[in-house]
Amino acid sequence: MTTDTVVCPPRKGLLICVSGPSGVGKGTMIRKIREIDPCVAHSISVTTRNPRRDEIEGVSYYFRSKEAFEQMLASGEILEHDSYCGNDYGTPRTPLARMVEQGIDVVMDITVPGSLSVMENYPGVITVFLMPPSYSELRRRLMKRGTEDETVMELRMKKARDEIRQCSLFQYVVVNDDLDTAARRILGIIEAERCRYKNMKGIEDQVLAL
Amino acid sequence: MTTDTVVCPPRKGLLICVSGPSGVGKGTMIRKIREIDPCVAHSISVTTRNPRRDEIEGVSYYFRSKEAFEQMLASGEILEHDSYCGNDYGTPRTPLARMVEQGIDVVMDITVPGSLSVMENYPGVITVFLMPPSYSELRRRLMKRGTEDETVMELRMKKARDEIRQCSLFQYVVVNDDLDTAARRILGIIEAERCRYKNMKGIEDQVLAL
Repeated sequence: MTTDTVVCPPRKGLLICVSGPSGVGKGTMIRKIREIDPCVAHSISVTTRNPRRDEIEGVSYYFRSKEAFEQMLASGEILEHDSYCGNDYGTPRTPLARMVEQGIDVVMDITVPGSLSVMENYPGVITVFLMPPSYSELRRRLMKRGTEDETVMELRMKKARDEIRQCSLFQYVVVNDDLDTAARRILGIIEAERCRYKNMKGIEDQVLAL
Repeated sequence: MTTDTVVCPPRKGLLICVSGPSGVGKGTMIRKIREIDPCVAHSISVTTRNPRRDEIEGVSYYFRSKEAFEQMLASGEILEHDSYCGNDYGTPRTPLARMVEQGIDVVMDITVPGSLSVMENYPGVITVFLMPPSYSELRRRLMKRGTEDETVMELRMKKARDEIRQCSLFQYVVVNDDLDTAARRILGIIEAERCRYKNMKGIEDQVLAL
């Protein structure tokens, strides 16, 4: 280290969208990423479902009524949304924008259709497709989660197949075989994106002034 | 780890060009990168200067006569070249192409003008600008190398200033403050580039077949 070292110019935070089929392990991956690098923030979703016993408003989710959710949708406050088991889930725009504005890099765990709509609505988003190591391993992971009904399982596997085929729409593909390796790979992607010249603009003036 | 894990589809090797002003530490950086990840290869330059006592043909450099070098230039065998203290230095195309064809990722330590010509001649090259932590630190590093003549020093510093201003032409900028941190950052860039969908094409078919 030297005494006079350039401090990188202030920049906006990066938005990193980690997607992939249900069962691939997106949530676990985001937790692992944040465990390794606590400077990376996580976008908190808004949901219409009731909080579970251990869930905290503004930490686990933002819990809102169906009416409030509809209103947020109408006002354009929801960046992307999806429904699951009759409840709505969405990504609120304001807290995300605030973090990005402050230069905080934010990862979000998001479904494949959700990602496609973020790609359209948020230019500059970094998109990572989390790939299962094999189709049969994805089936095992879904079974472990307790999906026992064979028809439901087949529907999910068909949906997963269609989603896996869409990986070409993402910038990066990371195979989720070993959790730690894959998390470090995604952190490598974040690190690389931080080094892009467009995220370092003005560094040359700062270096020359020192 | 699972038993049936996709093997990433064969791909061409990446060509990573590490550039920056004289004195920033490109050579040391390449050695550090290869020390951390020995799977990354280094492109060997061809030169018209005489071998030093400890230098080995085909390892340190390819040593060629002025005439042979001119012939290589004329035949298009030299990807980029530059001269320094009356000797010519260049990057031969064939060994590089052979490694890339075999899927080996290759880093090359190259001057700023050399990089600009590689950008034109080699689509897909990954370009990294190695930035000194400050202009005054670059001066100190050049002085340590034994440049004592003040006029020569001022010329080099002026050249460095012009080159630092060109960093915006590179894809990535990495500040070379701490060698280890900067080397790991460049390895992060290489890792990220390996994960780009275009370098993973066909993985979806392989995953779905397992």
